[in-house]
Amino acid sequence: MEVFLDNLAKNIVRNIKCQRLIPIEASGRHVHLSIQHVIELFGKDYELKIKKELSQKGQYQYEEKVMLIGPKGVYKDVSILGPPRSKTQVEISKTDAIFLGVDAPLRDSGNLSKSPSIIIATDKAAIRIAEGVIIARRHIHMNEKDAIEFSVKDKQLVSVKILSQRPVIFEEVLVRVNRDYSLTMHIDYDEANACGYIDGVYGRLIV
Amino acid sequence: MEVFLDNLAKNIVRNIKCQRLIPIEASGRHVHLSIQHVIELFGKDYELKIKKELSQKGQYQYEEKVMLIGPKGVYKDVSILGPPRSKTQVEISKTDAIFLGVDAPLRDSGNLSKSPSIIIATDKAAIRIAEGVIIARRHIHMNEKDAIEFSVKDKQLVSVKILSQRPVIFEEVLVRVNRDYSLTMHIDYDEANACGYIDGVYGRLIV
Repeated sequence: MEVFLDNLAKNIVRNIKCQRLIPIEASGRHVHLSIQHVIELFGKDYELKIKKELSQKGQYQYEEKVMLIGPKGVYKDVSILGPPRSKTQVEISKTDAIFLGVDAPLRDSGNLSKSPSIIIATDKAAIRIAEGVIIARRHIHMNEKDAIEFSVKDKQLVSVKILSQRPVIFEEVLVRVNRDYSLTMHIDYDEANACGYIDGVYGRLIV
Repeated sequence: MEVFLDNLAKNIVRNIKCQRLIPIEASGRHVHLSIQHVIELFGKDYELKIKKELSQKGQYQYEEKVMLIGPKGVYKDVSILGPPRSKTQVEISKTDAIFLGVDAPLRDSGNLSKSPSIIIATDKAAIRIAEGVIIARRHIHMNEKDAIEFSVKDKQLVSVKILSQRPVIFEEVLVRVNRDYSLTMHIDYDEANACGYIDGVYGRLIV
């Protein structure tokens, strides 16, 4: 009876939502710079060069890199993602936070209030941002049509089972709905390494 | 109806097993050395000094450290755990594996066949082990009484929900039953960082 209920429950939980799978992408540490900070770090007339488009429409990675300097460690060659934002935001993993020596909180993108300071540097200049270092909470991008298909709403928290060799169910995954979004779940490299992420891995929305 | 089934399923899955919580411990990178390798690295008459007892009876950490040298990176001050084993085993996380440049497989402790080689060094000597570097699969230690209480058996794979601020359900967690074991779940630091591990966090066996 117990095994029966176990299996019943698993089947209910794991099949009740849409069977469509969600592509998983692991995000390495990166920065989003404000226009003012691009000018301070690269010079007034410098144009950052687009290296490649990302999975989300209108988002790209630049060829240029910056250095992140924390009280305990330094990362060279950190990616800059575009387009520029109203506020500079540095996204790192918990592993990175320990290495750099910054007490970065787990936050949704854009929520930077009272997050730690860090030094960002190029060959030409260095700035200290007053706040802006976060560990980005895992999230799923999808458009309105996807949201209907998955029976979820913008800002809803869901669970996603990663279909890997080291299976994990991530709970409290934030759904972000926008007409321009492509269906993708973003995790950081701690999460990627913990769940046996490899290129081409998928997740299933289960709750 | 859907929400009702969702909640029913969640309650069935999450409450069907024992409500007793499992203490979680995060293991950093460490080595277990064979007696032969202790002699080669520290000298014939050297006695390693016990620094502290671990949660599992008869297991301890030594004061001495070793250096791990991979093709792409080096870690100084890596812990040695005792007592010595029949074969030297190096346990690292996926993050460590990438840093060191070794393609370590996810394995249960003791299963070292065809795992990568690495150099282990002290101030006195260096050795290259032919194999023995693994990413240890997450597991739960418990004694026979615990196993009865949780309705599980030795070598069974279970799921454990981590009761943290960044909740994750780890699936395929290996149960290891032995009369000398204390109830503890061991995860590595990728898993720890991915699930928001802090000292004193607990897990619940849910499947």
